[in-house]
Amino acid sequence: MAQRVAVIGAGPSGLTSIKACLDEGLEPTCFESSDDIGGLWKFKEVSEPNRASIYRSLTINIWKEMMCYSDFPIPADYPNYMHHSKILKYFRMYAEHFKILQHIRFQTSVKKVTQRLDFSRTGQWEVVTENKDGLEERHIFDAVICCSGHFNYPNLPLKDFPGIETFEGKYLHSWDYKGPEDMHGKRVVVIGIGNSGGDIAVEGSRVAEQVYLSTRSGAWVIRQVSDNGLPVDRFNTRFVHVMFKLLPMSFLNWLGEKKLNAMYDHAVYGLKPKHRLFSQIPVINDDLPFKILSGSVLVKPNLKEIRGSTVVFDDGSAAENVDLIVFATGYNYDFPYLPKHVMYKSGHRVGLYKHVFPPVLEQPTLAIVGFIHSDGSIMPQAEMQARFVTRVFKGEASLQQSYVVSRLTPLQVDFLEYMDDLAKDIGVRPSLLWLLLTDFPLFMRVFWGPITAYQYRLMGPGKWDGARRAIFTQLDRLYQPLRTRQV
Amino acid sequence: MAQRVAVIGAGPSGLTSIKACLDEGLEPTCFESSDDIGGLWKFKEVSEPNRASIYRSLTINIWKEMMCYSDFPIPADYPNYMHHSKILKYFRMYAEHFKILQHIRFQTSVKKVTQRLDFSRTGQWEVVTENKDGLEERHIFDAVICCSGHFNYPNLPLKDFPGIETFEGKYLHSWDYKGPEDMHGKRVVVIGIGNSGGDIAVEGSRVAEQVYLSTRSGAWVIRQVSDNGLPVDRFNTRFVHVMFKLLPMSFLNWLGEKKLNAMYDHAVYGLKPKHRLFSQIPVINDDLPFKILSGSVLVKPNLKEIRGSTVVFDDGSAAENVDLIVFATGYNYDFPYLPKHVMYKSGHRVGLYKHVFPPVLEQPTLAIVGFIHSDGSIMPQAEMQARFVTRVFKGEASLQQSYVVSRLTPLQVDFLEYMDDLAKDIGVRPSLLWLLLTDFPLFMRVFWGPITAYQYRLMGPGKWDGARRAIFTQLDRLYQPLRTRQV
Repeated sequence: MAQRVAVIGAGPSGLTSIKACLDEGLEPTCFESSDDIGGLWKFKEVSEPNRASIYRSLTINIWKEMMCYSDFPIPADYPNYMHHSKILKYFRMYAEHFKILQHIRFQTSVKKVTQRLDFSRTGQWEVVTENKDGLEERHIFDAVICCSGHFNYPNLPLKDFPGIETFEGKYLHSWDYKGPEDMHGKRVVVIGIGNSGGDIAVEGSRVAEQVYLSTRSGAWVIRQVSDNGLPVDRFNTRFVHVMFKLLPMSFLNWLGEKKLNAMYDHAVYGLKPKHRLFSQIPVINDDLPFKILSGSVLVKPNLKEIRGSTVVFDDGSAAENVDLIVFATGYNYDFPYLPKHVMYKSGHRVGLYKHVFPPVLEQPTLAIVGFIHSDGSIMPQAEMQARFVTRVFKGEASLQQSYVVSRLTPLQVDFLEYMDDLAKDIGVRPSLLWLLLTDFPLFMRVFWGPITAYQYRLMGPGKWDGARRAIFTQLDRLYQPLRTRQV
Repeated sequence: MAQRVAVIGAGPSGLTSIKACLDEGLEPTCFESSDDIGGLWKFKEVSEPNRASIYRSLTINIWKEMMCYSDFPIPADYPNYMHHSKILKYFRMYAEHFKILQHIRFQTSVKKVTQRLDFSRTGQWEVVTENKDGLEERHIFDAVICCSGHFNYPNLPLKDFPGIETFEGKYLHSWDYKGPEDMHGKRVVVIGIGNSGGDIAVEGSRVAEQVYLSTRSGAWVIRQVSDNGLPVDRFNTRFVHVMFKLLPMSFLNWLGEKKLNAMYDHAVYGLKPKHRLFSQIPVINDDLPFKILSGSVLVKPNLKEIRGSTVVFDDGSAAENVDLIVFATGYNYDFPYLPKHVMYKSGHRVGLYKHVFPPVLEQPTLAIVGFIHSDGSIMPQAEMQARFVTRVFKGEASLQQSYVVSRLTPLQVDFLEYMDDLAKDIGVRPSLLWLLLTDFPLFMRVFWGPITAYQYRLMGPGKWDGARRAIFTQLDRLYQPLRTRQV
């Protein structure tokens, strides 16, 4: 049974992994290469190699009630969508409240994680770390949780952009982008219409002479300010998920696309993708439509080639005198400290049992936490993963006898299905029937209300007495920050 | 009959007044105090005293088809909502196309406009000008059109803000605002939720630590990106106006407010005003709702007092450590060069027959053009006024025998009613019945389509052969700038 656990990284996943270890009576030691917690959410004025990077204006696109950890609601007066500075504050409160900090060794990088010779019997790992003075240390751990993130390595496929070597302007990856300072009066091409690409195009267009937003495949773009001004994730409910099970997907796509197009016609706006709405996670951007309508962002097809300062698109149209190209082309992931055979990679896919356990190991003592894409917030999902893996470490939860992964699992998961699945393994999945029979008001909120993570603290291991109350007050916390002027 | 006409100011109203003079065979001389055309729309990095001022990012909130002059559509590829730099380009094209520039004397201010001694017989005016070298000149004109604007004199009612003299930060009027450069990391209070106040709050909130938006009365806030992504003014049609005549106002208010609140609940967002939707011109702002939901703009009630660096609001709440207060408190108007008795003022109201002619004069040879607020664009209305007053100058259109203004008319007019009223006097109001009987496709577009000013060039004096085609192609010009990526 695992006792000593190494946690690699003190970002959102690392923090909650430490906490899960503490809750399960394990002894966590977290190695964090930087001098602070927060990972991705720790803003730095200059991006640092092999670390995630965010821009100055970044506001999270997940509603606060859906992004918080399951037993630590975000303060009621915090805004519904939080700027990165507030998110970091929240992590500090979490770390302090659960006494997490004392388990973190800052400025200590993990160089190597290897199975010990007796791994098949003990499941133990040797972890080699290096501190800021270059001093190496070797540690033995009963288990390891990797929380080093997957936005550390910019994907900059220059070979896909013929003529880039002739480009007379500057180019950068969105990873390097901090703000629009250098775009004043410039002509800018942004490549890629993910959330970063959309944000950078919009922000740049406020100062640039012209922004072109080039997209290979288009996108469905949703607003955070949804019906009646409520956060769009407010409508992510179990009821809606049941509807998604019951109704034909073609009808749901038709309905959803109709609703989106009623806001602004994605075909007219040049955004319409080939794929249907619910077959990919949509882009979130509230400001893009007006920027398109006022012409400061011109949506363009895929980049075909670059000639000097001219950027030519697939339809033959061109942007002339381009000063700057921003590649919002996403990230590659890597776990350079892990043995190669542990993480079998193929493109953007990786084989992990339940998105956490490498299936090749004889002992389930190595887990990757927070390594998913989803239609929901990573934070509560990472927390659920951490609860799951610590239970497995302790032997309280088991993996199937032979847990082969039949195919390489994509990173993308469905929030509710994934949460419920892990919760079931841990024994904390709320029983709707039991709630219906014993606590009808709570049942109503669990079924019709947003799928907040408090639901997974109502029963079973890690039960939190405040969970029921947190669910009953979640809408209060939605409205409270808006009560700034009485009407 | 007037021959020589002085036009004061070469902004949007002055330009079209010169053109109207030329169309009517009058001899215009325009005096422009600055060195360029465009008035309000000529951006300057530093505001200049007694001149209108705009900020760097300003994009007009009127759809291009509704803002253009009636016989000069905005190029098809121009965006639907134009940045001020594009608007100035459009004015340059207009001035060049109609050979307006040669009638403008730049860097020449009008110091004084007085009736000549034989005014009651001749209607003539003496105009004293001063050039950039300080040289004064006297001119005799048969008529005068004042187009000097009404956003020149910031309204800064400091006495309404007790304790402002103790304020430890900086304050400025929105007239002085150019961009958010000085707001980085600052705590900012914006007073007033007009279009400027909303824009400045939103723009500031992207870099400020916190923005408070203080409003005495609240506001209904609409989006320019309306149903299906069309410009909201697309729905300003004669059909809609007929509905407004037929249906009870209380029902229309209920319906309109319901629709607005479905986008975001104005009560929840702290915006809801006491007045009903259609009793005041709404505020236009697409970005404000998300800024409120993400807490970077906090809507606050009226400012009560200022104590050092603390700003206290009417509800007792306070903003602490405020660095900057922006007074978006509007403008006072003044025509300092006119004799006092000509423009009887009382607060924000002024007595003008049809919003153009001072009723106290024995001869209708002085007109104010562009001096209105409206639910539509000023440009086509100023143009219509110019067409009207030049017809009156020539004696082709007449004023009622005794044109008393029964009460001091507010500046605010209803776009369609006002346009139709003047058009009738000129003889250019489109006859719907005639169109219905003779040109049904055109009738459909005039009745169901947006009330673009081309409608007033279909018949009568100043008829333009391109008008019908301009109406048939107005929606093409909506879609063309959006066709940047084929879907």
